[in-house]
Amino acid sequence: DFLMALDEVKPAFGAAINTLEMCRPGGMLHCGRADDQNRKTGGVLVEQVKKSERTPLMTCLLEGPPSTGKTALAATIAIDSGFPFIKIVSAENMIGLQEPTKVSMIAKVFEDAYKSPLSIIILDNIERLIEYVRIGPRFSNLILQTLLVLVKRNPPKGKKLLVIGTTSEGAILKDMGLLESFNVHLEVPPLKPTDMMEVLKQQNFFHPRDIDNAVQALGPEIPIKRLLMLMEMAISGKEGDDAVAIREGHQKIDID
Amino acid sequence: DFLMALDEVKPAFGAAINTLEMCRPGGMLHCGRADDQNRKTGGVLVEQVKKSERTPLMTCLLEGPPSTGKTALAATIAIDSGFPFIKIVSAENMIGLQEPTKVSMIAKVFEDAYKSPLSIIILDNIERLIEYVRIGPRFSNLILQTLLVLVKRNPPKGKKLLVIGTTSEGAILKDMGLLESFNVHLEVPPLKPTDMMEVLKQQNFFHPRDIDNAVQALGPEIPIKRLLMLMEMAISGKEGDDAVAIREGHQKIDID
Amino acid sequence: DFLMALDEVKPAFGAAINTLEMCRPGGMLHCGRADDQNRKTGGVLVEQVKKSERTPLMTCLLEGPPSTGKTALAATIAIDSGFPFIKIVSAENMIGLQEPTKVSMIAKVFEDAYKSPLSIIILDNIERLIEYVRIGPRFSNLILQTLLVLVKRNPPKGKKLLVIGTTSEGAILKDMGLLESFNVHLEVPPLKPTDMMEVLKQQNFFHPRDIDNAVQALGPEIPIKRLLMLMEMAISGKEGDDAVAIREGHQKIDID
Amino acid sequence: DFLMALDEVKPAFGAAINTLEMCRPGGMLHCGRADDQNRKTGGVLVEQVKKSERTPLMTCLLEGPPSTGKTALAATIAIDSGFPFIKIVSAENMIGLQEPTKVSMIAKVFEDAYKSPLSIIILDNIERLIEYVRIGPRFSNLILQTLLVLVKRNPPKGKKLLVIGTTSEGAILKDMGLLESFNVHLEVPPLKPTDMMEVLKQQNFFHPRDIDNAVQALGPEIPIKRLLMLMEMAISGKEGDDAVAIREGHQKIDID
Amino acid sequence: DFLMALDEVKPAFGAAINTLEMCRPGGMLHCGRADDQNRKTGGVLVEQVKKSERTPLMTCLLEGPPSTGKTALAATIAIDSGFPFIKIVSAENMIGLQEPTKVSMIAKVFEDAYKSPLSIIILDNIERLIEYVRIGPRFSNLILQTLLVLVKRNPPKGKKLLVIGTTSEGAILKDMGLLESFNVHLEVPPLKPTDMMEVLKQQNFFHPRDIDNAVQALGPEIPIKRLLMLMEMAISGKEGDDAVAIREGHQKIDID
Amino acid sequence: DFLMALDEVKPAFGAAINTLEMCRPGGMLHCGRADDQNRKTGGVLVEQVKKSERTPLMTCLLEGPPSTGKTALAATIAIDSGFPFIKIVSAENMIGLQEPTKVSMIAKVFEDAYKSPLSIIILDNIERLIEYVRIGPRFSNLILQTLLVLVKRNPPKGKKLLVIGTTSEGAILKDMGLLESFNVHLEVPPLKPTDMMEVLKQQNFFHPRDIDNAVQALGPEIPIKRLLMLMEMAISGKEGDDAVAIREGHQKIDID
Ligand SMILES: Nc1ncnc2c1ncn2[C@@H]1O[C@H](COP(=O)(O)OP(=O)(O)OP(=O)(O)O)[C@@H](O)[C@H]1O
Ligand SMILES: Nc1ncnc2c1ncn2[C@@H]1O[C@H](COP(=O)(O)OP(=O)(O)OP(=O)(O)O)[C@@H](O)[C@H]1O
Ligand SMILES: Nc1ncnc2c1ncn2[C@@H]1O[C@H](COP(=O)(O)OP(=O)(O)OP(=O)(O)O)[C@@H](O)[C@H]1O
Ligand SMILES: Nc1ncnc2c1ncn2[C@@H]1O[C@H](COP(=O)(O)OP(=O)(O)OP(=O)(O)O)[C@@H](O)[C@H]1O
Ligand SMILES: Nc1ncnc2c1ncn2[C@@H]1O[C@H](COP(=O)(O)OP(=O)(O)OP(=O)(O)O)[C@@H](O)[C@H]1O
Ligand SMILES: Nc1ncnc2c1ncn2[C@@H]1O[C@H](COP(=O)(O)OP(=O)(O)OP(=O)(O)O)[C@@H](O)[C@H]1O
Ligand SMILES: [Mg+2]
Ligand SMILES: [Mg+2]
Ligand SMILES: [Mg+2]
Ligand SMILES: [Mg+2]
Ligand SMILES: [Mg+2]
Ligand SMILES: [Mg+2]
Repeated sequence: DFLMALDEVKPAFGAAINTLEMCRPGGMLHCGRADDQNRKTGGVLVEQVKKSERTPLMTCLLEGPPSTGKTALAATIAIDSGFPFIKIVSAENMIGLQEPTKVSMIAKVFEDAYKSPLSIIILDNIERLIEYVRIGPRFSNLILQTLLVLVKRNPPKGKKLLVIGTTSEGAILKDMGLLESFNVHLEVPPLKPTDMMEVLKQQNFFHPRDIDNAVQALGPEIPIKRLLMLMEMAISGKEGDDAVAIREGHQKIDID
Repeated sequence: DFLMALDEVKPAFGAAINTLEMCRPGGMLHCGRADDQNRKTGGVLVEQVKKSERTPLMTCLLEGPPSTGKTALAATIAIDSGFPFIKIVSAENMIGLQEPTKVSMIAKVFEDAYKSPLSIIILDNIERLIEYVRIGPRFSNLILQTLLVLVKRNPPKGKKLLVIGTTSEGAILKDMGLLESFNVHLEVPPLKPTDMMEVLKQQNFFHPRDIDNAVQALGPEIPIKRLLMLMEMAISGKEGDDAVAIREGHQKIDID
Repeated sequence: DFLMALDEVKPAFGAAINTLEMCRPGGMLHCGRADDQNRKTGGVLVEQVKKSERTPLMTCLLEGPPSTGKTALAATIAIDSGFPFIKIVSAENMIGLQEPTKVSMIAKVFEDAYKSPLSIIILDNIERLIEYVRIGPRFSNLILQTLLVLVKRNPPKGKKLLVIGTTSEGAILKDMGLLESFNVHLEVPPLKPTDMMEVLKQQNFFHPRDIDNAVQALGPEIPIKRLLMLMEMAISGKEGDDAVAIREGHQKIDID
Repeated sequence: DFLMALDEVKPAFGAAINTLEMCRPGGMLHCGRADDQNRKTGGVLVEQVKKSERTPLMTCLLEGPPSTGKTALAATIAIDSGFPFIKIVSAENMIGLQEPTKVSMIAKVFEDAYKSPLSIIILDNIERLIEYVRIGPRFSNLILQTLLVLVKRNPPKGKKLLVIGTTSEGAILKDMGLLESFNVHLEVPPLKPTDMMEVLKQQNFFHPRDIDNAVQALGPEIPIKRLLMLMEMAISGKEGDDAVAIREGHQKIDID
Repeated sequence: DFLMALDEVKPAFGAAINTLEMCRPGGMLHCGRADDQNRKTGGVLVEQVKKSERTPLMTCLLEGPPSTGKTALAATIAIDSGFPFIKIVSAENMIGLQEPTKVSMIAKVFEDAYKSPLSIIILDNIERLIEYVRIGPRFSNLILQTLLVLVKRNPPKGKKLLVIGTTSEGAILKDMGLLESFNVHLEVPPLKPTDMMEVLKQQNFFHPRDIDNAVQALGPEIPIKRLLMLMEMAISGKEGDDAVAIREGHQKIDID
Repeated sequence: DFLMALDEVKPAFGAAINTLEMCRPGGMLHCGRADDQNRKTGGVLVEQVKKSERTPLMTCLLEGPPSTGKTALAATIAIDSGFPFIKIVSAENMIGLQEPTKVSMIAKVFEDAYKSPLSIIILDNIERLIEYVRIGPRFSNLILQTLLVLVKRNPPKGKKLLVIGTTSEGAILKDMGLLESFNVHLEVPPLKPTDMMEVLKQQNFFHPRDIDNAVQALGPEIPIKRLLMLMEMAISGKEGDDAVAIREGHQKIDID
């Protein structure tokens, strides 16, 4: 039975790693102090789950505006954990499904996790999982109730589980009682000017003397995903060879 | 028939005890005066149900903020009662089920209880059973109506029933008319500083000289489940041997 | 056909009496002037239905706070009437049923009543029959519409029907237009101090000299069902033999 | 075909007359000027439908508080018309049916009417037909839309139709646009003191010298159905022979 | 194929003409300047659709209070167009149908129209088509969305379509975005005193010297359908021969 | 497999081009600076998608009042891109379909696009796709959630996708969180007087000396589609030969 259980767990992981990598197409850059701190806390939680004797369930919610890197951060914590079971629950894989089907899929992920000694479940973009829209407001109470129960249900004896949620609708999750169901809350903020500078330097696409101007042009704050897109657009604006040269670091984007 | 009825009752109980124990993974510590009082009242109600001739149904609601130990208290009262039939009705076992199915399950538990001379039913986390969410607000009226009737319906002649409900949404249950359907109301408060001190002393993980500081760090009030989690995290922060030593009482967590 | 009709009516009655008795587990005590008055009016209505030539349908609504004895009063009026057809319509027997099924059951009771020359139907706890909850507010309009029609529909020629409704939500029934559909309205109030004294004297569980104190302890008003429960609890608090002695009138509860 | 059409129409009428008579169990008394006026207008409308060449559809709404005699008035106009097709559409015959079934039944009545040269359809208690309740407010839009269309749809060439609606919810029907869909509106008021006097004199149950007192006791206004019930109760209060004597006019009710 | 298409179109037209005539049972009288203007604009639109090369779809909404002659005007424009395909979409032919069925029927009419080189579709009483009622407000979004799309969808190459809508709920159609989906808006007002005079003169039922009095009695404005009904009632009030004489113009109604 | 994939893609394109051309029946005129700018940005986005290495998904929303040319602009960008896969998602092809069916159709278009190296999807009139109406407000949350996910889901490795949305309900899409899901926002305004002048000159239907007057008559702003309709109507007003002469440029419309 042990072997069978192992069997069930392993392929899931194999599949998951690929999916997880796809959650950070822009790689993981150093994005300033808040980012450092969050990644460190992620590691601590992973350790805590591993070692704890009486708290077999740990739950952590990553809150932040759109495009601030919440999904990438959750994926990174999971990849770095080395846990044998990792699954991401995302609305992207449930398009057009009916509420009960979604509930079954989510519950199934938890049941699967309960079979592994150490597991991580990422509930990505919870507002999308519960089909929330501000107008009404509307959402799937069926799915919400499922999450409310699952993020508080202890795994069976001897199993450990870390649940990482991401959301850009913290306030509404609070109203729904879902926010307070998580043990730990981490804020994922947009980049401040010093953070942008750090990112631009790492990317090495600008002449050092241009970075200040570039940062000034970006305004007081910008989310990481958007910054990466803007840089990509700047490179694409160049003709073929130039673009390659910039990507390879031989040439720089000129500010104009 | 008597034997058959017995048969139906016994295994249920056997199964239930395990489940009940799982409701208090942190054990039962002494948590101050409110806690003492509540446990004593629980015992009185059990006696009352046993002896009463004209009040075969007694209902008691445990109200308190999240994590204050309501479920553990209900389980403890039930375990200590020694009643032959004990069942816990919890949303954890009804994930994703449709409302009518849930209603059937709940009604079934009451029908089963009516076959035993002395029974306890725990309606755990009533707001979850009725799928309540503040936004809307939404809830299952089908399940609510079922509870409204069941907590007031007398068991058949000669049978006695104690119903213990738990909730952290007392105000909303009041609006729904469910609160006033319970005969007795008990408040389950978070720990106050003197209560925390009592708990920390029992746990014996801090040097006595550090307890004052620890309590001060915890703020004016904290629910018991959260306090236990924090202590567990403090221990887990230590390396392997140290953690074991702390758990076994040879060493203490140092405040820093 | 006459015999067959008789057949259909009789067993129903036989069954009903038992059910009716179960509606007053605490017996019927004298509870002061309002209670006397209500019981007398009940008798007058019964007579009126029996004798009337052009008003074959009489409808009466008993309104009052929870536990004031509405159901017991309705049952008592019915039992004392000696009518050959008596049926109680109660949510307790319709747990978890779908609205259309409930409607069929209710309509069936009226159809059955139309076959008997003299009938009483008790619509117990109307707010529960219509699945009312203040939040929303929500209720079953299907069932409400059914009641709105049925309490005004004349029985066929030669048949007489008395409908007795009970409710603790008079105000909401008024908003729904159901209250004004009843011909007669009776208020069933909680006990006032003089009423409590009357009840306590009948029960004979206190020393006459203690009754004043007991009444003072109970506050300005209390519903009869709650008073009976408190007394039961006071007795249960005594050890075995004492309790029996009190019940049999040999001994008294002492105020402390 | 003519014979067949006749066939279809006749039995309907035969059945209807009985039903119509049952709509005025208290007979038709003279109830003062408003009543006279309304009955006269009813007759005029009947004539108008019969003679008109370009207005084959006439619709009339009787509005008034509960128990003021709207249904009896509608039935009386219909009976007096001598029209070959008369049908009453009432919620009493549609208890518990689903909305689409009700719609079919209502539409069927109109289709049947279209086969008769002269028809009257009574839409009794329209608020009940559309399942209206003030709370929400709720109602069946399916049925409402059906009525909105049907009361304005011309019968086929050569056929004439008079639709008489009754309601005690005029204001709400106005909001729904149904009131203005009727060509003619008649108010059916409760009885004023002079009207009551007229009714009491006809009934001949009081000594002439007592009528003034009786009227004074009744207050400023009372609906006819309620007045008849009160008188019936007054008679029923008398013992057997007295009651018969009063009914037969040999004896009078004495005011006390 | 051409012949087949012709086949499909012709009978539809044949049937339609009858239906169209039934939309103006009172004939078409001259009703003053607004009426003249509207009929002229109708003709212009018909021409426009016929000749236009790049605007194959023209849509026109007739707005006005109840009974002002909107349906009759729409029918008249259609009849006068001589277009080979004319269809009226009316709630009168869809009583009790389910929303999806209605949608199919409406879509079918458009599909049929697309097969004819020149078509007119009348959407009569749009508020009724979408099952609108002010209370709620409620309406069929399914049908509304269908209309929103259909009145803006171009017919296939080479086909021309004129859509004429009628409504007495212009304001609500505006809120729904349906009003602005029509290219042209025409107001259909009630008759003013000078218009009434014009109508009465044409009808020739009054002595010329009485017309002024008659108009004064009618108040500041009246819709045409109501005026025709009142005159019809005035005639019907006369005995047989008189009525005929009035209709044939030999005699006049006398004002009294 | 490559050939098969090609097969799947090609016919789709073939079909699409026709449909795209039908989105601009009035051709593409030069409509002033805003128009120029928008078309240029469209081209830039196309290039960006082609060249980018790390931003395989680009999304752009065209917002503007009704009839301002949004659909024609989107079609033009798509046609000019030369991308092998272009699909337009429009409510016009989904009339009367149920929500889940629409969701499947939309999701299918994205799945198909993921098979082509370079794709464009036009989501035309998003408020119609989600069945939005201001009253309620009502809309299909099922379809909205689908769009919310799809416009942010990255295509598989090596595939590039440009999504162009159009809407005249920007504010409501913002409230729904859909607006911020698009990377780029373009405003499509109505024509200002100088723009109208430009359009009229190109059309060459007026004598140059009349254009000023014409523009003045049109007011401060007008959407392009409406202007084209008005001119068409002006031409249609002329008799046969004149109209042809105007269209062919030999003759001009005279202002009157
Ligand atoms: N330190 C970092 N933290 C997070 N993301 C980073 C970091 N450095 C680079 N990235 C890149 O930034 C992008 C962040 O996008 P991501 O989808 O995680 O944002 P998000 O907050 O989940 O957005 P959304 O609100 O749309 O869900 C990814 O492509 C990731 O590879
Ligand atoms: N005296 C005590 N009373 C209650 N719980 C105690 C006590 N001492 C220790 N505990 C432990 O504290 C925890 C209380 O958690 P419990 O789930 O009962 O809280 P809860 O109020 O039901 O939380 P929730 O609001 O999430 O339902 C349990 O692990 C229990 O073993
Ligand atoms: N005079 C009395 N009238 C009514 N009930 C009495 C009287 N004397 C004793 N009782 C007892 O009081 C209790 C009244 O309870 P009952 O269920 O009728 O109250 P209720 O108003 O229907 O409560 P609820 O609001 O919960 O429906 C019964 O046990 C009944 O036997
Ligand atoms: N002149 C009269 N007009 C109407 N009803 C009369 C008249 N005289 C006597 N009656 C009697 O009064 C009663 C009127 O009751 P009816 O049911 O018609 O009232 P209603 O207004 O329809 O009541 P509801 O509002 O409950 O529908 C009938 O029993 C009828 O026989
Ligand atoms: N010039 C006229 N324009 C319109 N109707 C006229 C005119 N002259 C006479 N009529 C007659 O007036 C009546 C108008 O009724 P019609 O049903 O068209 O009104 P409507 O505005 O559609 O009413 P509703 O609001 O009930 O739909 C018809 O019987 C028509 O024959
Ligand atoms: N420069 C231009 N941009 C856009 N459309 C133009 C331009 N020049 C001419 N046109 C024509 O103007 C019309 C614009 O209509 P279109 O349907 O695109 O507007 P829309 O904004 O999508 O309208 P709606 O709000 O109804 O969806 C088309 O017939 C198109 O051929
Ligand atoms: Mg994300
Ligand atoms: Mg709990
Ligand atoms: Mg009761
Ligand atoms: Mg009536
Ligand atoms: Mg009309
Ligand atoms: Mg468009």
